[in-house]
Amino acid sequence: MVNSTMLDLGSNRSVIRELFEYGKKRAAECGAENVFDYSLGNPSIPSPAEVNENAVRIMRERSSIAVHGYTSAVGDNGVRTAIADDLNARFGTSYKKENLFMTCGAAASLISVFRALTVDHSSEILAIAPFFPEYECFVKANGGVFGYVPADVPSFQIDFKKLEAMISENTQAVIINSPNNPSGVVYSEETVARLADLLTQKSARFGHPIYIISDEPYRELVYGSATVPWVPSFYKNTIVCYSYSKSLSLPGERIGYVLVPSECDGFTDVYNAVAGGARASGFVCAPSLWQYTVGACASSRPDIAGYDENRRLLCGALTEIGYRFAPPHGAFYLFIESPTGDGASFSETAMKHNLLLVPGNGFKCDSYLRAAYCVDGEMIKRSIPAFRAAYLEATGNA
Amino acid sequence: MVNSTMLDLGSNRSVIRELFEYGKKRAAECGAENVFDYSLGNPSIPSPAEVNENAVRIMRERSSIAVHGYTSAVGDNGVRTAIADDLNARFGTSYKKENLFMTCGAAASLISVFRALTVDHSSEILAIAPFFPEYECFVKANGGVFGYVPADVPSFQIDFKKLEAMISENTQAVIINSPNNPSGVVYSEETVARLADLLTQKSARFGHPIYIISDEPYRELVYGSATVPWVPSFYKNTIVCYSYSKSLSLPGERIGYVLVPSECDGFTDVYNAVAGGARASGFVCAPSLWQYTVGACASSRPDIAGYDENRRLLCGALTEIGYRFAPPHGAFYLFIESPTGDGASFSETAMKHNLLLVPGNGFKCDSYLRAAYCVDGEMIKRSIPAFRAAYLEATGNA
Repeated sequence: MVNSTMLDLGSNRSVIRELFEYGKKRAAECGAENVFDYSLGNPSIPSPAEVNENAVRIMRERSSIAVHGYTSAVGDNGVRTAIADDLNARFGTSYKKENLFMTCGAAASLISVFRALTVDHSSEILAIAPFFPEYECFVKANGGVFGYVPADVPSFQIDFKKLEAMISENTQAVIINSPNNPSGVVYSEETVARLADLLTQKSARFGHPIYIISDEPYRELVYGSATVPWVPSFYKNTIVCYSYSKSLSLPGERIGYVLVPSECDGFTDVYNAVAGGARASGFVCAPSLWQYTVGACASSRPDIAGYDENRRLLCGALTEIGYRFAPPHGAFYLFIESPTGDGASFSETAMKHNLLLVPGNGFKCDSYLRAAYCVDGEMIKRSIPAFRAAYLEATGNA
Repeated sequence: MVNSTMLDLGSNRSVIRELFEYGKKRAAECGAENVFDYSLGNPSIPSPAEVNENAVRIMRERSSIAVHGYTSAVGDNGVRTAIADDLNARFGTSYKKENLFMTCGAAASLISVFRALTVDHSSEILAIAPFFPEYECFVKANGGVFGYVPADVPSFQIDFKKLEAMISENTQAVIINSPNNPSGVVYSEETVARLADLLTQKSARFGHPIYIISDEPYRELVYGSATVPWVPSFYKNTIVCYSYSKSLSLPGERIGYVLVPSECDGFTDVYNAVAGGARASGFVCAPSLWQYTVGACASSRPDIAGYDENRRLLCGALTEIGYRFAPPHGAFYLFIESPTGDGASFSETAMKHNLLLVPGNGFKCDSYLRAAYCVDGEMIKRSIPAFRAAYLEATGNA
């Protein structure tokens, strides 16, 4: 009576969501202060003040019809120009509004691009492990083939030998996500340059462009001296998927964009096909108030001091206990090596101490666990004994 | 290099959008006051005051994290309860939050349901002409078969003989839209009851439920003594798709819901498959601020006096000239019979008088034209001579 794929997708909660629900149950049983929930990547720092200020101002100053009416499908002109100007000021580029397509957040950006590049049922999108599990669901549920390259442990850059072996004439795009969910790793310039070289060669060999889809919701979340290379400057056939969910702490509002640089091979067709992918998926326009608001806040950056403090606190304490983890330079995730070598079993050990860590198998990296440190810093302090106890239990030193 | 269907969908602007762009061009050439643009169904009355008031209040009173964070995929519990309570108060039903799934507007509602009910590539969704042209694109681009029953001219109810002949074992659902875009007609209780009877028989014959998808963005826009039957009260296998775009004048914000009554055959599977359809299409959650706002405004109704005044004005003047049209009881459209019998050619005649009417062929009703009267009433007054001149020109009485 119903589509079995949709039924599966709608019935099966993600492991992350299961853990989160378990945490709420445990909090009710033994007190919220005794549960250490690192499961969800929900921003814990508020939006910059100017976000709400602008949203309110726009509603007060403009007519209801102007604020809440349809925008064109591609997005408001002024908003797209403001975003292009900001990108140009930062990256020395010369984008125009015609390069930008406003979307209902990262998932909408990705699906619109996946549908655009899925020429037929043999078209393949490759990801690099570890990766956000919804990639696979988004590609497969929209008619494409999904593949992935195993993780390059422990640096979490790219295993180019394995990637090279996987690229075929059916490969339409390689999706990268740096700063990375779940590893927190930022790709180096060297990694991006090598990827560009490889895809240039492979595109020539197979006679069609192989695009990079650069999924960048965490672009603004980097710490210390780390920087995020601007991928289109390394490889012209890069399509950028962006979301304001993490950078402006607006995940519930569903606002982001796709950037298709004019330098892309087949620019007009790619841009129009992205628009078609959005239309086919029911994205009439991105939410209008949030378009105007992010346009007004195009140069706003998050105050990430709180995340950075959490990161230092957690990394310091875990190192002292004996944990090892991926280089924690971006996003708000720490990717922890299981002391037993198996993420799933250690997640269960940790749960006994009311410590909720997401096992890495969902991200195709079985020996690790993800801790989302977008949490209250006090929770981190309270959680250290649990981290210690779980470690000792798992390593048999309890 | 790109998907040809997506490229087509993204490259080809709709006829409505073309007309609208033409109107803007003509306005620049000969003055906005001399162009009579009836092309777009964009609400012209502002949102009820409490909409913006509540949106601002929610942003002021609650933390940024609480307002802008992810809600669960199905939508906020309190919001869904508020909407269920309002429906129950109006229709004598007993819905709960578990019957509601919040969406990013009507298109998201429809696509989620279409994907849920498209079991395989033979699954068919039937519409009743005249209908919103995106239905066809939404069904076909998501793997289903689309069919439609010709319009029942001039009453614009349902031609049951033709519908009966079209229903097959592959028919998964019949989509209805009352009050109707483009005809402005409201289905009578008799029509809904006959449809229920027919689908009950056909479901029994084919051994599976044939659902009604009741697309109701115009539910609150009815005039005079007309009433809109509550379809689930007539037929248990009714899935309601709703949007606040027209009722609260929020088309740009993308907020609506799907209602799956518990009485539906296979309720749990249908509800979960709708959730899966939304997930597969990239709808992570409906925009959170607008969820909370429509929850707070669950009992708000639009002040449709302005539309009603426009309706009376336009109907009166056009009747006097000699035009005939569908019974104009709902939505904000007048569906005008072409004086020449052909909508497309009369649309061109009207354009010569700077009068923009959408030809009915896009709605699968060639001999009619749609006039969206969600416009400034003064424009209607100024447009009457153009209506008269076009009529006289077309009928050879100029």
